[in-house]
Amino acid sequence: MTTDPDIDIVEGHLMIHSLTFGDVLRQNRRSHPRQTAVVSDTGERLTYPELDDRVNRLADVFRASGVSGGDRVVWLGQNSHRLLECVLAAAKCGAVVCPVNWQTEADELAFVIDDAEPGIVFWQSSELERKVAAVRERRDGGARWIQHDGAGADSYEGLLAGASAHDPEGYVDPNEPLLLMYTGAFDGRPNGALLSQTGIMLHGLVVANQTGINEEYVYLNCGPMYRMGVLWNTLATLHLGGTNVFVPRADPELICAAVERYRCMGALIMEPTLSAVIAFNEHAAYDLSSLRSRPGNAGWSAMTTPDPHHRPNSSSQYGQTEVTGLITTAAAGVAGLHGRPSPVAQLRLFGEDGREVAPGEIGEIAVRGPQIMTGYHRRPELNGRRQHDGWHWTNDLGRREADGSITFLGPRGRLIKSGIENIYPAEVEACLRRHPAVADAGVIGVPAADAGGQTLKAIVVVKPGMTTTPDELVRHGLEHLAGYKVPREVRFAPALPMKNAGIDYEALDREHGGGGYPGSRLFTTMTGI
Amino acid sequence: MTTDPDIDIVEGHLMIHSLTFGDVLRQNRRSHPRQTAVVSDTGERLTYPELDDRVNRLADVFRASGVSGGDRVVWLGQNSHRLLECVLAAAKCGAVVCPVNWQTEADELAFVIDDAEPGIVFWQSSELERKVAAVRERRDGGARWIQHDGAGADSYEGLLAGASAHDPEGYVDPNEPLLLMYTGAFDGRPNGALLSQTGIMLHGLVVANQTGINEEYVYLNCGPMYRMGVLWNTLATLHLGGTNVFVPRADPELICAAVERYRCMGALIMEPTLSAVIAFNEHAAYDLSSLRSRPGNAGWSAMTTPDPHHRPNSSSQYGQTEVTGLITTAAAGVAGLHGRPSPVAQLRLFGEDGREVAPGEIGEIAVRGPQIMTGYHRRPELNGRRQHDGWHWTNDLGRREADGSITFLGPRGRLIKSGIENIYPAEVEACLRRHPAVADAGVIGVPAADAGGQTLKAIVVVKPGMTTTPDELVRHGLEHLAGYKVPREVRFAPALPMKNAGIDYEALDREHGGGGYPGSRLFTTMTGI
Repeated sequence: MTTDPDIDIVEGHLMIHSLTFGDVLRQNRRSHPRQTAVVSDTGERLTYPELDDRVNRLADVFRASGVSGGDRVVWLGQNSHRLLECVLAAAKCGAVVCPVNWQTEADELAFVIDDAEPGIVFWQSSELERKVAAVRERRDGGARWIQHDGAGADSYEGLLAGASAHDPEGYVDPNEPLLLMYTGAFDGRPNGALLSQTGIMLHGLVVANQTGINEEYVYLNCGPMYRMGVLWNTLATLHLGGTNVFVPRADPELICAAVERYRCMGALIMEPTLSAVIAFNEHAAYDLSSLRSRPGNAGWSAMTTPDPHHRPNSSSQYGQTEVTGLITTAAAGVAGLHGRPSPVAQLRLFGEDGREVAPGEIGEIAVRGPQIMTGYHRRPELNGRRQHDGWHWTNDLGRREADGSITFLGPRGRLIKSGIENIYPAEVEACLRRHPAVADAGVIGVPAADAGGQTLKAIVVVKPGMTTTPDELVRHGLEHLAGYKVPREVRFAPALPMKNAGIDYEALDREHGGGGYPGSRLFTTMTGI
Repeated sequence: MTTDPDIDIVEGHLMIHSLTFGDVLRQNRRSHPRQTAVVSDTGERLTYPELDDRVNRLADVFRASGVSGGDRVVWLGQNSHRLLECVLAAAKCGAVVCPVNWQTEADELAFVIDDAEPGIVFWQSSELERKVAAVRERRDGGARWIQHDGAGADSYEGLLAGASAHDPEGYVDPNEPLLLMYTGAFDGRPNGALLSQTGIMLHGLVVANQTGINEEYVYLNCGPMYRMGVLWNTLATLHLGGTNVFVPRADPELICAAVERYRCMGALIMEPTLSAVIAFNEHAAYDLSSLRSRPGNAGWSAMTTPDPHHRPNSSSQYGQTEVTGLITTAAAGVAGLHGRPSPVAQLRLFGEDGREVAPGEIGEIAVRGPQIMTGYHRRPELNGRRQHDGWHWTNDLGRREADGSITFLGPRGRLIKSGIENIYPAEVEACLRRHPAVADAGVIGVPAADAGGQTLKAIVVVKPGMTTTPDELVRHGLEHLAGYKVPREVRFAPALPMKNAGIDYEALDREHGGGGYPGSRLFTTMTGI
């Protein structure tokens, strides 16, 4: 009994145990034949069989363009169902999709396109024509540029119309990358994390379990799809047979209209968009009651429905793009601020000496599991620093509490030495930021021979309209930290110097007399999902 | 920064993306340090760190006994926390655990032990001493026999006390087998399905999502742990950080006492045990309200709590040991009797000609995905028949309904030919069994030249105290089946001849004039999880 003569025996044997997003789509066209998979930003509905046919045609375009296993495809556009189609076509071909941040400047976009070396760049004319022209001026190498929102034979829709909807169903290794997500310019340039199908799928199943994504779920893609924080929901919704609704960008009117019309249940809406949506809808012109929300914003709660999956007294979560998103899950009633490690990951904390630290002590967060990136694209040296000895090193500091839960403290950054004690500024800053009057805080070490190395100095930014005093902040520190971790000196400043979305410690040192740090590892990082 | 000098670079790189049940246990000792992992049948509680220490010691015993990657360990005993420890130690070593059905006869046990070729047999004295002696008389080859419920230096506890609790944390491939589960003697002997760690884990995550297994879950291991239907819950409960409670066997008093004392929330309790428990507790001597139950048995519902995860009008599910358990999940309000394919599997239906059949048509169920067995142990020829062309062939018949849901009809068995029509007895029998007066039914083909091949004859067993007539059953058939599938002749019998837990069609043919079947594939199978 044969199903496809193209499948040879080795490939057939591998396929028996494999599962890719291509397979998920093949199954969903059968399991959910009438379900709406996609609502485009123009209101066009695609069922799962219709979506799968379009994805097959796009995969045919990929092949005709010479894009195959491991090759990159860049998406230089806003949110669109066509970006989801690109990801699914790549899943069927073994290609890798890189959705770039269209909001960044042309120079950085050109750098990313140069670094990704794509076989195809899908670009958008609407709202982005001038930026795309500026990028192409700098970088138009070997890639095929296809306009996704155009017409004509060479446009996305034109090419799909001329392609074959046949699905050859070849074997694709689910442990190979599907997404290339540029992130964290902590060494002065963005680096692209390669994320595997298996990792995205497992991460999505855990998220789906926690947030109730199932075949009845309707997800609004209004947050930026060049961030995993949106894409993991897009793909989990697809995986579980739900409906993805698309609007090109986080616009209050587009969001309100789509939520009301399609009864969307989930969406990533961050500030300042959240406040803009609340203000836009203050007279309840739109019915947003299908959206599930978590407590914290009275105005938002008033127009939405409490999320039945949210448990009171629930912790936050921790993650980074390099681990496909979240590596801890929210837990209720735990000591740690960031929940417990995901059931599909291992998480340990290691000290500067490479040994695992005891609960209550601070260490670098190291993780393991299928959702860890396969590596940064074209960064062998950096990969060696981030992945060795059986662990992925997050560059982030954390603490395991006595109940086994996790508190993320901040990027590892620098270490301050006071006597025999190691002090991580990130921990002290995190404590200061929890004071109600504090908007931000940076902590530096000041050379002090009498203290056996350095003493701590905090530079604090006070929230508008609030007041506090150095004494009050020292008392706050003594309440929550060991004595040696409490800054002896507190200075107020209108703002902190920033660099690469983190504190510019070198500038802070120069302005406030910092110095005397122990030798190594004086680099700053950031965590952005 | 090094964590363990034993880990070489290649192994370390593999470990970054790996997740085994050994890793889960390593994480749970950190994430759930105070949680009770296990309550033994003598009421001994083990926290996750205590369980992990014992598992490390047992893994040390495995190594000292020469058991390593791919080697088998047989469990010849009743339910015990020590069986879970064996599975976890095997997960850390790459070994394979075979829990045999202690209720079968010594001859079959000896056959299984001979076939499994174990390095260690763990055996139980209590209740099983004579049976074990009878087995060893037949088969005592190269294995080390260790008594798990004994005392002394050579017993399970004695060996653990003398072993090291150090965890070397070597790399174990999660796609290699962890369990060897003997099943379905459809070709005259039991065959052992090899099930991988990844498959068991993914299956368990889907089950946990559907049944609400989490760190607060307490699972009572009272059903037979030599069946996946129990073990997948045991391992999912461990995975999510819950508590496993053990009783040696399905005894009403043991079950009631354990549920009350440990507030168990889940348990597999089948007939006749279920009725025995209800009768035993009819005066509510024990509080069983912590147990979640699904509707269907008023007496049971009265002493338990409705399962909040059960959706009204929910379908059944379908699976087999060879796919680690369930391959469909329950769905509410669907046409198919057995839900929808699991999100981590693909399921298609193929006709006799090897082509996928259309919705509404009957075909053999073929499946793909990580939870498919890696193969039967030592059955190359059978593996070739069950796994080829990129699919695992279940030998079961099913139908995809128009809404994408699945109905499982029964083992493929034989095919009856009437004119140009193919008729699967399994489908007709499944229809007859849904009649309220029918206990069981077997359908055969009777040679009939005028019908262009065969006509259908049904042999029906009526439920005690019920009556029906051939005419009534034909009307019932015409209501639910195409006309050509309705038996022209109905005979009543006190029982059907059985063989290997399925209908003995050869005997049925002999007794009722069956014959004239089309050529091939005239073998019977069974589905038992």
